[in-house]
Amino acid sequence: MRLNILLAALMASACASAPEAPPPTEGPVLSMAEILDAAPADAWRTPDPENTLYMDLESGRVIIELAPDYAPNLVANIQTLARQHYWDGAAILRTQDNYVVQWGRPEEDPRPLGDAAETVSAEFDQPASAIAGFAPLPDRDTYADEIGFWNGFPAARQDGRTWLTHCYAMVGAGRAMEPESGNGTELYVVIGQSPRHLDRNVVVMGRVLQGVELLSALPRGTGDLGFYETAEERAPIRSIRLASDVPEAERTPLRVLRTDTETFAVLTESRRNRRDDWFVTPAGAIGVCNAPVPVRAG
Amino acid sequence: MRLNILLAALMASACASAPEAPPPTEGPVLSMAEILDAAPADAWRTPDPENTLYMDLESGRVIIELAPDYAPNLVANIQTLARQHYWDGAAILRTQDNYVVQWGRPEEDPRPLGDAAETVSAEFDQPASAIAGFAPLPDRDTYADEIGFWNGFPAARQDGRTWLTHCYAMVGAGRAMEPESGNGTELYVVIGQSPRHLDRNVVVMGRVLQGVELLSALPRGTGDLGFYETAEERAPIRSIRLASDVPEAERTPLRVLRTDTETFAVLTESRRNRRDDWFVTPAGAIGVCNAPVPVRAG
Repeated sequence: MRLNILLAALMASACASAPEAPPPTEGPVLSMAEILDAAPADAWRTPDPENTLYMDLESGRVIIELAPDYAPNLVANIQTLARQHYWDGAAILRTQDNYVVQWGRPEEDPRPLGDAAETVSAEFDQPASAIAGFAPLPDRDTYADEIGFWNGFPAARQDGRTWLTHCYAMVGAGRAMEPESGNGTELYVVIGQSPRHLDRNVVVMGRVLQGVELLSALPRGTGDLGFYETAEERAPIRSIRLASDVPEAERTPLRVLRTDTETFAVLTESRRNRRDDWFVTPAGAIGVCNAPVPVRAG
Repeated sequence: MRLNILLAALMASACASAPEAPPPTEGPVLSMAEILDAAPADAWRTPDPENTLYMDLESGRVIIELAPDYAPNLVANIQTLARQHYWDGAAILRTQDNYVVQWGRPEEDPRPLGDAAETVSAEFDQPASAIAGFAPLPDRDTYADEIGFWNGFPAARQDGRTWLTHCYAMVGAGRAMEPESGNGTELYVVIGQSPRHLDRNVVVMGRVLQGVELLSALPRGTGDLGFYETAEERAPIRSIRLASDVPEAERTPLRVLRTDTETFAVLTESRRNRRDDWFVTPAGAIGVCNAPVPVRAG
């Protein structure tokens, strides 16, 4: 009910270019918590355990949701690696300030790929027509004609193609010079200003739902590109498992707000035009990497 | 000479809307280091020691350049506080992931303001006509009609006003509900995705030139908004001094690339359209928070 008031204001301004649209000034000012508390149960979804990675560190668990629609072959390879326990005893290899944290097997401790592929077709983007449910935002973007969300993941569209965008906490597959060399053995997460110049140059296939601070607060590596120079500096990885391979009792249940819902539209509008008393000048716009996609326990 | 080749390509495309402009494909591919090594000596400037803060932590020195043109009264108040050694024995009070690190005096250990003011006029923006030397970028921005750089600081312009933008490593003055309450006693630095919705709602008056990783890698606070819940969790601040108040032998000499130079234009274009072999799809655009402003020793 309260949501409807904000939604009406949202609908009135949704088609205008956001920076020029006047901020809605009617209706109650709701906090993020109030908007989420008012959401119907079906505004939330439970990530598929087959598409959920648990990276267990000494400091805790990092939970990553995979996006197979955007990178089916890469996600399949990552699932194969996880099922083979490829990363048991792996490590955080690199932490570069305002850029990425990257992990994999240390050079001196390799492991065979087993059933996983050495190279994977470079799924840098997908035909826009192949991705159902892309929910566009009306806001301007520096790097793409159109931005929005797909199933909780920030994404962009242009020239009939779509791709996931390099925002904070998004996960991609490091690669060497050959585009197909990103096979998922070395993954990275963005821990700074969104490096959007990497969009369509690396495959982005996941998002950290919980625990990104266990990575973003790591000491920065002192080698080139933030690589750690000694084995002792690297944070060890106990294991990376698919949630579906972990006994029920050891899983971490999470719900993610659906981004094709009225609740998400209202939440995004409330962040685009902050009306709490503290704000003097509402932004009138929101970036694809600034719009929060809430995650809750349970 | 090599710079001129790239500059010609830059000039040819500078006025077009960046995402549509074809990337230049002529001329050598220069790395950032090569572009900077080719820069004339006068492409660099030495920050004024009167406008340079040294924050000395147990882990090292964080160096902040102040921007008095954008916030003359606030910067004067910060200079007064520094000269009075206001922050000796202060602490990092708050580290919120993907947001800010904030410091000041702990509540239980206040210090009188002395000659500093309790409130300062809210210098959220300035008349665009009052700021000489704003160098615009042609790229689209989500939050403002125009973006660019002023004297090494990322900035925006719209409706005849200009302001410094909340990018990674930018420093602002925390405030309470009243806009004038941001007197500089509590400062913060951005350590995540640029929170541009804060632009024009808080006074941004500085940039970390060196040592931001001493702050961005701090453990995240577990209280609301990332505040540390106990005194033991806070990183202590030994002192914050103006460089001009530190003996010459204890200063850290730095040079900052001038952002109104050919070298900066060439560098920015080389980042906008990456042509190194690794890149498959040059971005064709660059964000105001993604364009690097290099800092060198000496």
